Amino acid sequence: MDKEKFIISAFANSINGDDGAVINNHCYSKDLFCENVHFKRNWMSLEQIGAKAMLVNISDAIVMNSIPKYALLGLSLPKNLSLQDIKKIQQGLMQEANNFKVQIIGGDTIADDKINISITIISIINQNQKAIYRKGLKKDDLLAFSGKLGDSLKGLKILQRGSKLHSAHRFIRPKLRQDFFYDIAKKINASMDISDGLKKDLSRLLTVNRLNIKFLKKLSFFELNSAEEYEILFAFNKKHKAYIENMAKKHRIKINIFAKTKIGRYIYHGKEHHF
Amino acid sequence: MDKEKFIISAFANSINGDDGAVINNHCYSKDLFCENVHFKRNWMSLEQIGAKAMLVNISDAIVMNSIPKYALLGLSLPKNLSLQDIKKIQQGLMQEANNFKVQIIGGDTIADDKINISITIISIINQNQKAIYRKGLKKDDLLAFSGKLGDSLKGLKILQRGSKLHSAHRFIRPKLRQDFFYDIAKKINASMDISDGLKKDLSRLLTVNRLNIKFLKKLSFFELNSAEEYEILFAFNKKHKAYIENMAKKHRIKINIFAKTKIGRYIYHGKEHHF
Repeated sequence: MDKEKFIISAFANSINGDDGAVINNHCYSKDLFCENVHFKRNWMSLEQIGAKAMLVNISDAIVMNSIPKYALLGLSLPKNLSLQDIKKIQQGLMQEANNFKVQIIGGDTIADDKINISITIISIINQNQKAIYRKGLKKDDLLAFSGKLGDSLKGLKILQRGSKLHSAHRFIRPKLRQDFFYDIAKKINASMDISDGLKKDLSRLLTVNRLNIKFLKKLSFFELNSAEEYEILFAFNKKHKAYIENMAKKHRIKINIFAKTKIGRYIYHGKEHHF
Repeated sequence: MDKEKFIISAFANSINGDDGAVINNHCYSKDLFCENVHFKRNWMSLEQIGAKAMLVNISDAIVMNSIPKYALLGLSLPKNLSLQDIKKIQQGLMQEANNFKVQIIGGDTIADDKINISITIISIINQNQKAIYRKGLKKDDLLAFSGKLGDSLKGLKILQRGSKLHSAHRFIRPKLRQDFFYDIAKKINASMDISDGLKKDLSRLLTVNRLNIKFLKKLSFFELNSAEEYEILFAFNKKHKAYIENMAKKHRIKINIFAKTKIGRYIYHGKEHHF
């Protein structure tokens, strides 16, 4: 058993195991964004680090069909950062918080040797709708992802070779699909964001639902293995296909319907990302 | 301006700046508990590290007059920890969560080089009562703290000399005063937990309320400067003195009424802890 699975199972209960935890009409989610784990300092500006930390957390709320409202920050900041540097991180965090009308309501700050950002997002389930979980997949559901996958991994490789990425590159600034997703959410049986690569995230989705899939098309290595895409993996009954395709058109978003669920067990052959 | 104050002011709004942020009848708090910042590995067992991380977070909810209900965890764990080690941290976290009937509802885990624990506590304001903030202090209020102060700093010095502390020592396992505090909360004008030392925390309380104090007794260096006590600093109108002393007796808790507020500005002469 990998260590992450062990930890999650150790705390297992009826609420956790999703991108967010739903209590009444609230959803709570928390992700870490850490130097030398999720980013290196020379890959991104301090504003971009702050902005991405906020975005990847907001992403969790969106895929639960929940509207992000408040954020709590836990900031570990190196002693040698200047006030100017700290202001840049703060500006990045605030910029994306403002874009999504999220109010920062508190948190904690310590001096440490690396930039580690922990964010908790408090969100409210989309009015008169239900939260969408990883669980809920039905046999014969269609599986799709928003946008296109692969660029994040390509960007990572460019950074690892020592080159820089454009500020609009997906690895620097993930593009979230909130308006599209809130519009289709009523028709969706299960969803999650693609943070560890489609192949790995798909294995989580299928395992929790005890289903297998039949691929409807061949996906590339990059599509299957690119982490930190923050596109949405979602499932729906085929009768909603036209509606969802129309909504994608309305929002000018590409969607890729790539598989169909079937009875069986999905076995993941790939590396465990976190340890 | 010290960096922590800078960061807090950068995110300033009407909600933050307290131990917890109150939205409707919910309170949200988040503290970090980090290796080589708050503890060293050879000072405490892994169970004790997990337990203290949970306790110091629950403390924030209590001093807001809020009942802790749910927790989200952000765990950075070194790659070289064994499953057995991780289980110990988990047991410590769970033990105190269970003691306070707190359910762990989610979170995130990464592999890093140190043990860093970030916890968000979701709590519900004590039924039919109000949250208690740092703000709310009135002129001529009495200021008191629960328990006795100083042992945490004494314990820290013992650890720094290379000796060990008993598992019941305050530095290892802070004693929270929830039952007493919930009983007196209706009479309290302002409160906070003593995490950075009475002298420093007092300066925060007085600054936000634009008041000064007159000491009613002399406090020792250890009482003034011992951090991580997690005793409660609280203020009340002198007409409630007998009630509060009775409640302290009922709960067998020592309280120390040490000062009275007065018009004026309190100037803090001491080191800034966080940077």
